[in-house]
Amino acid sequence: MKHGLRVLGLDDGPFNKFTDIKTVIVGVIMRLNYPVEGISVREITVDGMDSTEIVMSMIRGRFRGDIDFVMCNGITFAGFNILDIQKVYSKTGIPVIAVTRKNPSIEKISRALLLHFKDSEERIKIITETPVDKIGYGDRILYINRAGIELNRAVELIKNTVNTGNIPEPVRMAHLIATAIINKESHGRV
Amino acid sequence: MKHGLRVLGLDDGPFNKFTDIKTVIVGVIMRLNYPVEGISVREITVDGMDSTEIVMSMIRGRFRGDIDFVMCNGITFAGFNILDIQKVYSKTGIPVIAVTRKNPSIEKISRALLLHFKDSEERIKIITETPVDKIGYGDRILYINRAGIELNRAVELIKNTVNTGNIPEPVRMAHLIATAIINKESHGRV
Repeated sequence: MKHGLRVLGLDDGPFNKFTDIKTVIVGVIMRLNYPVEGISVREITVDGMDSTEIVMSMIRGRFRGDIDFVMCNGITFAGFNILDIQKVYSKTGIPVIAVTRKNPSIEKISRALLLHFKDSEERIKIITETPVDKIGYGDRILYINRAGIELNRAVELIKNTVNTGNIPEPVRMAHLIATAIINKESHGRV
Repeated sequence: MKHGLRVLGLDDGPFNKFTDIKTVIVGVIMRLNYPVEGISVREITVDGMDSTEIVMSMIRGRFRGDIDFVMCNGITFAGFNILDIQKVYSKTGIPVIAVTRKNPSIEKISRALLLHFKDSEERIKIITETPVDKIGYGDRILYINRAGIELNRAVELIKNTVNTGNIPEPVRMAHLIATAIINKESHGRV
């Protein structure tokens, strides 16, 4: 990563899927090997459809113009609140890279959506619009969804953003903050 | 700072002194030049008397045993919620270093307390129990309150904890997180 490149790392807070209507989504803005520069905190609806608008509001908020790309841990937030990364890119011009260590099985998610959501078709459309690339990363497999960026470039950015463990540092920071807001104290990893 | 030494950096969130009953206090646990290891978030009463108990609950919480000393920006949180740093040290054994760039005038604070607080005597007692040391730091003056630690050692730890600007990095991080929780987006410096 060039030193000038700033990433917005996203993660959602924990929630009880039976009782909680909302949780938080946290964005952390930083450059590699530099201190955190900015933090965004928003509420997000559990199993809602507002993640795309919320992430765009972060990009267009106080840190507008500072963010070069977005990184997150998969494209589902707060349950089945699916981030439309193609829309984020087409509306804001900011590329999005979503990385997970587990295979985000489209079949499994689609089945759950069909079973529990009236608007399952719309949600499944978003998921199927962003194909998953599977790459070897050290001794692991990573699954990557991306919008507005070539796979090679996305992998390069992932490699340069991972500081400790296998999680991009801004995503790890967002995770710590989001869990601490909801549970008083941060825990573990993404 | 020895690499093993972990600091709990504290800062409070913004609040409206006329309308807000509570704000947040955030603790960030880190070692110098290492990524953040843990985050604590608590509510604190504006102009209340709960900061001492809350800070002790952070020290005794999930990160119990990990924290070597506490750093904060002065000893008043959420208005006139005065942190009894002597009590924190005597009850937990963890030293506390409070640094400010402005002279925390005891006379001024005492006058405000006498005017507005029924328990002003108790609050003034806490303030006067922790004398302020004034030190030259580069081209600046720093004011230091401390408990359980020698002045020389406190200055050494301050020097080693300041990463960017003149603010100890864990305190700067706590500030960013606390302002983002209350105002949606972090801003500025301590």
